[in-house]
Amino acid sequence: MVKVGIIGATGYTGVELVRLLANHPGATLEVLSSHSYVGKKYSEVYPHMLPHLDLQMVDDNPDNFKGIDQVFLALPHGVAGSLVEKLPAEIKVIDLGADFRLANPREYEEWYEQAAPNAKELEQAVYGLPELKREKINGARIVANPGCYPTATILGLAPALASGMLVGDSLIIDAKSGVSGAGRGLALGSHFSEVNENFKAYNVGRHRHTPEIEQELSSVAGRNITVTFSPHLVPMTRGILSTCYGNLASGWNETKVREYYQEFYTKEKFVQLLPQGILPQTKWVQGTNYCLMNVVVDERTGRLIIISVIDNLVKGAAGQAVQNFNLLWGYPEDTGLLMLPQIP
Amino acid sequence: MVKVGIIGATGYTGVELVRLLANHPGATLEVLSSHSYVGKKYSEVYPHMLPHLDLQMVDDNPDNFKGIDQVFLALPHGVAGSLVEKLPAEIKVIDLGADFRLANPREYEEWYEQAAPNAKELEQAVYGLPELKREKINGARIVANPGCYPTATILGLAPALASGMLVGDSLIIDAKSGVSGAGRGLALGSHFSEVNENFKAYNVGRHRHTPEIEQELSSVAGRNITVTFSPHLVPMTRGILSTCYGNLASGWNETKVREYYQEFYTKEKFVQLLPQGILPQTKWVQGTNYCLMNVVVDERTGRLIIISVIDNLVKGAAGQAVQNFNLLWGYPEDTGLLMLPQIP
Amino acid sequence: MVKVGIIGATGYTGVELVRLLANHPGATLEVLSSHSYVGKKYSEVYPHMLPHLDLQMVDDNPDNFKGIDQVFLALPHGVAGSLVEKLPAEIKVIDLGADFRLANPREYEEWYEQAAPNAKELEQAVYGLPELKREKINGARIVANPGCYPTATILGLAPALASGMLVGDSLIIDAKSGVSGAGRGLALGSHFSEVNENFKAYNVGRHRHTPEIEQELSSVAGRNITVTFSPHLVPMTRGILSTCYGNLASGWNETKVREYYQEFYTKEKFVQLLPQGILPQTKWVQGTNYCLMNVVVDERTGRLIIISVIDNLVKGAAGQAVQNFNLLWGYPEDTGLLMLPQIP
Amino acid sequence: MVKVGIIGATGYTGVELVRLLANHPGATLEVLSSHSYVGKKYSEVYPHMLPHLDLQMVDDNPDNFKGIDQVFLALPHGVAGSLVEKLPAEIKVIDLGADFRLANPREYEEWYEQAAPNAKELEQAVYGLPELKREKINGARIVANPGCYPTATILGLAPALASGMLVGDSLIIDAKSGVSGAGRGLALGSHFSEVNENFKAYNVGRHRHTPEIEQELSSVAGRNITVTFSPHLVPMTRGILSTCYGNLASGWNETKVREYYQEFYTKEKFVQLLPQGILPQTKWVQGTNYCLMNVVVDERTGRLIIISVIDNLVKGAAGQAVQNFNLLWGYPEDTGLLMLPQIP
Repeated sequence: MVKVGIIGATGYTGVELVRLLANHPGATLEVLSSHSYVGKKYSEVYPHMLPHLDLQMVDDNPDNFKGIDQVFLALPHGVAGSLVEKLPAEIKVIDLGADFRLANPREYEEWYEQAAPNAKELEQAVYGLPELKREKINGARIVANPGCYPTATILGLAPALASGMLVGDSLIIDAKSGVSGAGRGLALGSHFSEVNENFKAYNVGRHRHTPEIEQELSSVAGRNITVTFSPHLVPMTRGILSTCYGNLASGWNETKVREYYQEFYTKEKFVQLLPQGILPQTKWVQGTNYCLMNVVVDERTGRLIIISVIDNLVKGAAGQAVQNFNLLWGYPEDTGLLMLPQIP
Repeated sequence: MVKVGIIGATGYTGVELVRLLANHPGATLEVLSSHSYVGKKYSEVYPHMLPHLDLQMVDDNPDNFKGIDQVFLALPHGVAGSLVEKLPAEIKVIDLGADFRLANPREYEEWYEQAAPNAKELEQAVYGLPELKREKINGARIVANPGCYPTATILGLAPALASGMLVGDSLIIDAKSGVSGAGRGLALGSHFSEVNENFKAYNVGRHRHTPEIEQELSSVAGRNITVTFSPHLVPMTRGILSTCYGNLASGWNETKVREYYQEFYTKEKFVQLLPQGILPQTKWVQGTNYCLMNVVVDERTGRLIIISVIDNLVKGAAGQAVQNFNLLWGYPEDTGLLMLPQIP
Repeated sequence: MVKVGIIGATGYTGVELVRLLANHPGATLEVLSSHSYVGKKYSEVYPHMLPHLDLQMVDDNPDNFKGIDQVFLALPHGVAGSLVEKLPAEIKVIDLGADFRLANPREYEEWYEQAAPNAKELEQAVYGLPELKREKINGARIVANPGCYPTATILGLAPALASGMLVGDSLIIDAKSGVSGAGRGLALGSHFSEVNENFKAYNVGRHRHTPEIEQELSSVAGRNITVTFSPHLVPMTRGILSTCYGNLASGWNETKVREYYQEFYTKEKFVQLLPQGILPQTKWVQGTNYCLMNVVVDERTGRLIIISVIDNLVKGAAGQAVQNFNLLWGYPEDTGLLMLPQIP
Repeated sequence: MVKVGIIGATGYTGVELVRLLANHPGATLEVLSSHSYVGKKYSEVYPHMLPHLDLQMVDDNPDNFKGIDQVFLALPHGVAGSLVEKLPAEIKVIDLGADFRLANPREYEEWYEQAAPNAKELEQAVYGLPELKREKINGARIVANPGCYPTATILGLAPALASGMLVGDSLIIDAKSGVSGAGRGLALGSHFSEVNENFKAYNVGRHRHTPEIEQELSSVAGRNITVTFSPHLVPMTRGILSTCYGNLASGWNETKVREYYQEFYTKEKFVQLLPQGILPQTKWVQGTNYCLMNVVVDERTGRLIIISVIDNLVKGAAGQAVQNFNLLWGYPEDTGLLMLPQIP
């Protein structure tokens, strides 16, 4: 049994980690930390956990994590870097924030407007998208768990960019997310009466997930890829749908594209191409670690449209972190991730 | 491994049974039947199931269930009675509909305006609320799985009526349900634009769950109890909250009431009294088999208010059916029911 | 044209006042004040107002309201009392908060845990429910605009208590509100991901609208009436539905009750009894000043159930304030309130 | 006063026409027809209308419309063509369906898979987007009221295509709609539990609004424009947001684009460019006839992104129809359309 600590256990990714790890057969939840609730029992913050788990919360002092094998960081960006430096070197780290995702510290500093983590830690970090980086994740000390939008988008576009089926070096990504992606922190933009029965775009062309998407797509494509990334807010709690647009190279049609995608993900449990004509819906993955997708070729305009969905808090955060945890500790990759979606 | 068949597998209680049983370590899903989709694969109706299960559906001809140990009926009322007669006697039946819930066939006929099942089958049936009927369920052939409103309401009121803490023989139950309780059948009352951003009462004083509630509360109280039952429709998919009102007998106060409730359910895993002052929320049980509740004494008026919540499709339907299945086959009662709620 | 100022113009009742008054043929919006946004244009807070109105906001210094005929206060409780003292005596005041609603200052202090307004101002105040207090409102200087729950509840119960059709002196009120009733102030209880797909009760037996309801119902009944008041939160933005329970006196039945209700409100434009069997839905009054209601007699238990709906921000706040404004200034009572509900 | 009839008065566009016309100072609602509810009073279908209007419904026999000046057709496509032939020639027609929108009957037949209206009627028809076609609408007999997606999209893209600021002949339109756009007809895709907490794309590359968008954009551009049109379904009742992507020509930047847009719509009441950096939200136009929009230039990729919002049932249907009605009968264009949005 791997002894686990969660730093930032009361945010939405934190409580989702708790949900998944509480039932994980190879992990025991030993330490939960929280800035705001030190000394309180977890069920005082989340009464629904009363029957399930009731640890008392501590702060993020490294001493509190002695004897822990694996730490999950579920923190706002900018905090993880200095925290990881202080943790004993034998503790493995999965960071669900942004600090270790960008290999180039200058790019981090440009988009996040603050200092990147030290080079020493940054070099220990691997971008934790298992379907593309499985081998590197295996032996890593620090796993940089991908963002929610990047997970849906990179998985959707990777086969297209690996294959040469797209012409041009720039893509359009029109993405839509449920509100839980904005976290548990209070803000007018997450206030019920402002969000409910409302739909909007935000941070168009300047969302911080942009460089992460470009970094990974460029890596897959073997050339520099740029994206126009337009996030939108959907009046629902969970779910991300990413609609991606590219121009199809000559010689490709929907059948060939489908075959390539099918083959590309044939061994992946958590990524599924749907049958032709069945477009994915966010609810079909709610609460699960799956990414469902489909492709459409618009023959009138020569464009390829790829639509992919995930649960932003599972495959887009805590579930993918558990998948990485399984890779780090040698468990089958779907351990603790077998739940089916609730329909309806 | 118990071989399981589901009759009516494509309705909302059917697909929820599939979700729970697909991961049950002591059950194998062998046969799924559906009136509307005979010959289709399950994933043609529910594409989200593609990675999980892909049986071809059959009709409800008894021959299709040869070799099956346990059948779940997830059907509209009025159909189960005649179906059960035709099933081989060695097959155990859990009926999620209303046909076997009322012991008195005249009461069934009055409220449902059609013939009750034959006396022979009716006598084999037990009202399947495990917390109150565990012993009887153990050896039953037919388990009449309780309705969603009755589950929340009876669990909430049973301690109050068992104890003598209430005066009078009539109670008020103001209950609220998510829309999935109305099923997958198309109706204007379940049409998104009619329900969303809307709240209403319906069938006040004449909902068919009324006699079921009165039957079980009278049984617990040892005297004839009537209820005014007012259901309301909440613009959400899952969840029931039942607010029950009675007049407190002299000598009782909130502390004593709490102690009694705590003691009454002390050995129950799935029923939990929350700490004083913490009122239950439907989301805290979403996707789980739990019933959370709390009590409030309004000293200004001498009333006891009991508030209880369940997920109408789990503890109010498919989860309770699995709990009954576990009782019937000797599995620990929480087998296959260990999932935690998704928060948020 | 009456010159109007709104103090607290950026909260939800403030912006709803702006919506209604901007189109009122007998009012001109002259001054908008706001604690948080002094010096900003209204459209900087509410961009949707850009095409409609663009006043710059001021603070609530009385000098800012010189020359104003009518001030609306849309403030948290506890602020209005001292503010009104400082306003020139010739300015009429409609207070949408709670400070002037309770005639008995001790009751105010008990429920609101702070000092009541001075006796001088309190004596100038009239409880502004036009259907019951029309004559008194006419010449008042201060109108205490009723709370949202009280408006729906008192209108629903007034005929029953005026008639003697109920026995006993205590009633049960199970009320349900959309989230906008909690205002624009940030709180976890109004955070989208906490409220959406969730239903809960809150402040059962101790909500501050209780004494206001009891005061007015006692006045109508001519005897002391107590209520058990249980508010619930519905995952929608607007709307209140109040379900009220009483015991029917002998000699009354549904037909007689209906006739009495019909007669009681026969001259009222904004209060309507629906046809028998048609229960009101909150959406049917969305955006309008109407209160729709119906009555059900549960003959099995001898109870009368009254169900009434309003839009909490219109008839429950800003619309009723405009109705009172019309009374104060001699306009037809429905001036500026003719809009029909948006369906769907 | 213009005498008005509505054919198809009980669908969602029908009831929205009733809402708007019931308060229109220059129109009287004389005849409401409905296939499904002939002989019923309107309030039997829509009880919320009881205080407002209570006509008895007739069928669409042309005799029922004698003496009527203006007929609105709110029907499924394929019905209007033959109906209009039978109506007396002196009756003006505004068709809210698709039958008269495409000038080229072969295109209609290709996309709608049925016969186009007769050439005689088709020639009398004008595409009723007032901001672009005001002069032609003035004297028309038949106004083809634009679709909801096309209204938002064409208004958003018209300045870009009129100016030459875009290179290339093909655009991407990623559009999102509330559920009321699918109408009142029952369908699994509009069933509450299927739509709520869910987001999906549908009919990508083959939605029937595509040719209408291309026809009008080509007309504005003076060259053949194609679009990839991807509609999505948002779990809310009302609202459309259209996100449009094009490649910016050299010499253009965000400032120049903004100036052009500002100038293009400077005289339009119902179309508003928001201040820089303020992206439109669907709720800001709810219940109103406004189209709000903004532009973003993504300098990293050279793309222009245009985001526009409307209420699909108002500017996208009934409100625009009233705007056209005002043009036809010489009323100021905003008559009956002065309502402000409900916020929140």
